[in-house]
Amino acid sequence: MRGKILVVGGVAGGASVAARVRRLDEYAEVIMFEKGPHVSFSNCSLPYHLSGIVEDSSKLVLMSPEVFKKRYNIEARVHHEVVKINRDRKTITVKDLLSEKTYEESYDKLVLSPGASPIRPNIEGVNQPHVFTVRNVVDIDHLNTHIKQNGIKNIAVIGGGFIGVEVAENLILAGYHVSLIEFANQMMTPFDYDMVQILHKEMVDNGINLIVNDGLAKIEENYIVTNSGKKIDAETVVLAIGVKPEITLAKDAGLEIGETGAIKVDANYVTSDRDIYAVGDAIEVYHKILHKPTRLALAGPAQKQARAAADHIYGNMNRQKGVIGSFSIHLFDLNAAATGLNVRTAEQAGIQCDSVYVMPGDKVGLMPNSNPMHFKLVYEVPTGRILGAQAIGKGNVDKRIDVIATMITMNGTLEDLKDLELTYSPMLGTARDVVNHAAMVALNLLHGVYREVKVSEVRKLVEGNAFIIDAREKSEYNAGHLKNAINIPLSEFRERLDEIPKDRPVYIHCRSGQRSYNMVMALQHLGYTNVYNISGSYLGIS
Amino acid sequence: MRGKILVVGGVAGGASVAARVRRLDEYAEVIMFEKGPHVSFSNCSLPYHLSGIVEDSSKLVLMSPEVFKKRYNIEARVHHEVVKINRDRKTITVKDLLSEKTYEESYDKLVLSPGASPIRPNIEGVNQPHVFTVRNVVDIDHLNTHIKQNGIKNIAVIGGGFIGVEVAENLILAGYHVSLIEFANQMMTPFDYDMVQILHKEMVDNGINLIVNDGLAKIEENYIVTNSGKKIDAETVVLAIGVKPEITLAKDAGLEIGETGAIKVDANYVTSDRDIYAVGDAIEVYHKILHKPTRLALAGPAQKQARAAADHIYGNMNRQKGVIGSFSIHLFDLNAAATGLNVRTAEQAGIQCDSVYVMPGDKVGLMPNSNPMHFKLVYEVPTGRILGAQAIGKGNVDKRIDVIATMITMNGTLEDLKDLELTYSPMLGTARDVVNHAAMVALNLLHGVYREVKVSEVRKLVEGNAFIIDAREKSEYNAGHLKNAINIPLSEFRERLDEIPKDRPVYIHCRSGQRSYNMVMALQHLGYTNVYNISGSYLGIS
Ligand SMILES: Cc1cc2nc3c(=O)[nH]c(=O)nc-3n(C[C@H](O)[C@H](O)[C@H](O)COP(=O)(O)OP(=O)(O)OC[C@H]3O[C@@H](n4cnc5c(N)ncnc54)[C@H](O)[C@@H]3O)c2cc1C
Ligand SMILES: Cc1cc2nc3c(=O)[nH]c(=O)nc-3n(C[C@H](O)[C@H](O)[C@H](O)COP(=O)(O)OP(=O)(O)OC[C@H]3O[C@@H](n4cnc5c(N)ncnc54)[C@H](O)[C@@H]3O)c2cc1C
Ligand SMILES: CC(C)(COP(=O)(O)OP(=O)(O)OC[C@H]1O[C@@H](n2cnc3c(N)ncnc32)[C@H](O)[C@@H]1OP(=O)(O)O)[C@@H](O)C(=O)NCCC(=O)NCCS
Ligand SMILES: CC(C)(COP(=O)(O)OP(=O)(O)OC[C@H]1O[C@@H](n2cnc3c(N)ncnc32)[C@H](O)[C@@H]1OP(=O)(O)O)[C@@H](O)C(=O)NCCC(=O)NCCS
Ligand SMILES: [Ca+2]
Ligand SMILES: [Ca+2]
Repeated sequence: MRGKILVVGGVAGGASVAARVRRLDEYAEVIMFEKGPHVSFSNCSLPYHLSGIVEDSSKLVLMSPEVFKKRYNIEARVHHEVVKINRDRKTITVKDLLSEKTYEESYDKLVLSPGASPIRPNIEGVNQPHVFTVRNVVDIDHLNTHIKQNGIKNIAVIGGGFIGVEVAENLILAGYHVSLIEFANQMMTPFDYDMVQILHKEMVDNGINLIVNDGLAKIEENYIVTNSGKKIDAETVVLAIGVKPEITLAKDAGLEIGETGAIKVDANYVTSDRDIYAVGDAIEVYHKILHKPTRLALAGPAQKQARAAADHIYGNMNRQKGVIGSFSIHLFDLNAAATGLNVRTAEQAGIQCDSVYVMPGDKVGLMPNSNPMHFKLVYEVPTGRILGAQAIGKGNVDKRIDVIATMITMNGTLEDLKDLELTYSPMLGTARDVVNHAAMVALNLLHGVYREVKVSEVRKLVEGNAFIIDAREKSEYNAGHLKNAINIPLSEFRERLDEIPKDRPVYIHCRSGQRSYNMVMALQHLGYTNVYNISGSYLGIS
Repeated sequence: MRGKILVVGGVAGGASVAARVRRLDEYAEVIMFEKGPHVSFSNCSLPYHLSGIVEDSSKLVLMSPEVFKKRYNIEARVHHEVVKINRDRKTITVKDLLSEKTYEESYDKLVLSPGASPIRPNIEGVNQPHVFTVRNVVDIDHLNTHIKQNGIKNIAVIGGGFIGVEVAENLILAGYHVSLIEFANQMMTPFDYDMVQILHKEMVDNGINLIVNDGLAKIEENYIVTNSGKKIDAETVVLAIGVKPEITLAKDAGLEIGETGAIKVDANYVTSDRDIYAVGDAIEVYHKILHKPTRLALAGPAQKQARAAADHIYGNMNRQKGVIGSFSIHLFDLNAAATGLNVRTAEQAGIQCDSVYVMPGDKVGLMPNSNPMHFKLVYEVPTGRILGAQAIGKGNVDKRIDVIATMITMNGTLEDLKDLELTYSPMLGTARDVVNHAAMVALNLLHGVYREVKVSEVRKLVEGNAFIIDAREKSEYNAGHLKNAINIPLSEFRERLDEIPKDRPVYIHCRSGQRSYNMVMALQHLGYTNVYNISGSYLGIS
């Protein structure tokens, strides 16, 4: 084409567009504008500098402008901010932040990947020098230097999204006292309230002062004040309450902004101007399951969009499948991951759904490093279409979520999942994978084979003096049990049927829900019409 | 139903049938016949007793007959061998191996899950007491006791299937000198020859005396002799050359045996007698991709077949999707997994296919425990239908293969895989997952965007004095390089085009194939019509 392609932003989306353009066209002139000092850095690894897992912050930068020039013949202009798009004459106005000079650069095609910027709430004290956000290498260097050089002890992280959580974790690993303040009733919204409790516990167990249902009201020099009036020691504050898409350039240029407040693009990431593309955190994307625009500020999608945009410049169309939202996080000893919809988002969208919660071992129990995996599967009722899943555990929970992400992408149902033939050897898994288990349980419920109540309803049952059977063995029961629960082990119930009433609802639980399920089935065959398995069960209650 | 259901075999298939029948029918009389002393044991964990990873062999047994009785009201008759099926009167003849008494037991439905038995080759010395096979807890106890009590030093394992390999690994971990003898030119046939070299190396690096292309000719008291005449010290021999389906009962009863030599069943695991089912290692299954009967002696399929058979007894039909063959193994420091077809099996089946070999990092390079993953993807040409994959590395390679297994199950293509939105955070993965990489490379090849030669052809190229460019940096080149390869780093080639000939084929490699690919693309745009990327590249060659 021998054209001139300008790229705004030099990181996940921008650098990927530029590199792909070069492979498609050795002759194109490609210039990448980056207002910061670095291109091509690992945003996602930033928090790990705080703990020293990434000791040298310069390691966070994967490729310098020099390397871009030499390897890809791409010019990366750092410290250059694009301040205006002049669509009429197909130029951009650029400000050299070092010389303060401004100039115009013409384009044949322009690609915007300016990312998103951390939201700074408009509250008292927010502009003090001990208040930080984390978006790039400069940010993390500033924060890290500040806390180390000033002998900081107490740090408040505001916001329980994955960035806030990772920052909090790495600060704890570095030995600071950390409070995490979250306005909503839970952190990390990809998880449902029940699942996220496991992560809350992990945070608290590792020494984080976790405060939910409370917001930041005021920042003082040595403490913060929350909406509820709590005073929390904090000589340093990190704001991580979310990001807003960088749309100023696009908006000023009259490009269409979508309903979610991000740049609107078509199936090939073309904006409302056919010579301007946009990708990454700044755009809105189409949700495959919700069938509507959404935002998804993640690196994998940014890179994929970037490649598709470059392709379209060269006439290759993108098959737009929509996004599903796949997410993972490592948190102290746990891994957690989610994909698609959770019950909350599915219900908000008015999708008729149900969920199951299983917790089999992630490897054969005999093997070293075998651990329970908490797994929640969300599916449409009555179709059995898989809508999403969440998993938490010490093992490879994220890779199980990847299987569900694949299923959702391929429009899979519970039937597909039930028989899925996955790899198995005892050091690495179980003959029936957790996803098989979840699908079997879900199909049983979907087909009305038996009924269950969710663990969240147990408190009400206990308080209402419901008839609850603990189906575990006596020794397990003695080690701790639900108030009022009667111990009738699966191994004894057939001789103790006279203790189980037929004239009132019977609720049964065990450790994982599996032994109780076997008892529920038997009782149903024996003429009990009002038996319920308690899902999640003892492990979930405790 | 209140019928009587008899099950032959009490382990993976048998125990699963019985348990599922009980959940479907509290009134059925269920009797499980097992000729050995144990039901419900973890066959797959047997080898781990040799190393002490499973110290106490009784732990290998998951459930006793007593527990079966108490929990499931299932009678498990151990030491009871079923010696005959009397179809005319719907009974079986059973021999109590302790009392030596024989009796008949009637059935309404009979389920066969007798498994498979280790093949004992008909060679000299095979029946000596120091020659073992490994199929059950008794076997592994015998073997373990023998080698410990007799001060054995040298052990020969015959056969490089996964059982032989796991036995060899665990014997090495226990401190024995181990030779592994494999008749074919490679062990573990789920892997192609190129991929399995990594596993061969892992075996040798860990002290196993690995001998391929050679068979067992003779067993003496203190050594064995191979077909090629090698004498190998071995005071103990473990035979693991494969298993043959246990079809005697079925055959004697006139049940149809399939073309693969295993019991023939329909989509619901019904044999040619509608009152007799068969599942597990003893049956032949239908291959989803090959569209023909095959055998698959694995635990996951056995358990799933068992559930489906029980379901059919109660009128629930099974959606038969066919098998794909998903497999994993842990081997010293490596994990390895495969699913679907490899190039060898695809070509044998006459399927037009190609493959790609990529080796990106399994996590962000900065993070602890980041390791290269060797990943080979096999696909149909020209449809791009995914046929199979193999992966080897220190990380969660098996879970990546699970994604491919899911794709194959859902009839996915390279296009689906390229855009697959998987979970990502830097401690757990990369923004572009290895499966995305593999799909992009494969699509580039499928669409003729560039051409490559496989690493296996490199020796020929070197010997033929081909023009080979090493696109790595000088320091990497100096640390070791291919004979005759010219070092033109990706970062320099644009100034050194005069060194690259246009009149003869140019082959380019780097560490992983990625930098060389960028150079190939550029050269093509610059008018070079005869450039090839070397796939697998330096890491694969060395
Ligand atoms: C701390 C942290 C952890 C994260 N962890 C994960 C994770 O684990 N997994 C995951 O998938 N995602 C993660 N992300 C998100 C991921 O990094 C982003 O989704 C991705 O980087 C978005 O790519 P982008 O190109 O749109 O924006 P960016 O990568 O942010 O790049 C945009 C660049 O454009 C520059 N820019 C903006 N405006 C202009 C202008 N006018 N002129 C010149 N330059 C401009 C900015 O300075 C910026 O460097 C994380 C992000 C952060 C901050
Ligand atoms: C050492 C080893 C490691 C393995 N590792 C793995 C692995 O990592 N992953 C994997 O997927 N698979 C693995 N397998 C294979 C897996 O164990 C089998 O595929 C599975 O057990 C087959 O189930 P089945 O019910 O058909 O046979 P089995 O589980 O073998 O059960 C059959 C039972 O039937 C009994 N029996 C046979 N005939 C009669 C009769 N006439 N009367 C009474 N009883 C009878 C036998 O004694 C036997 O106990 C491994 C197998 C072994 C031996
Ligand atoms: C690295 C960066 C410049 C992009 O480089 P890229 O070359 O486009 O992307 P990748 O490194 O993923 O490589 C993918 C390319 O290599 C090819 N490839 C990968 N392995 C290959 C192999 N073994 N043989 C041949 N080609 C191979 C792929 O096909 C693809 O090329 P294509 O797009 O032309 O088909 C850009 O992603 C970047 O700067 N990233 C850092 C910032 C960031 O992403 N942050 C967020 C995550 S922490
Ligand atoms: C253990 C054994 C008896 C089978 O038991 P099983 O109960 O059929 O199988 P699982 O333990 O996998 O449990 C699956 C059942 O529990 C249900 N289940 C699992 N978790 C549940 C939960 N949380 N709530 C409700 N039900 C649950 C499933 O739906 C399924 O029931 P269904 O088939 O009626 O739908 C049998 O597999 C066995 O003996 N195995 C050992 C031998 C072996 O397999 N060896 C090879 C591998 S090493
Ligand atoms: Ca249980
Ligand atoms: Ca390389």
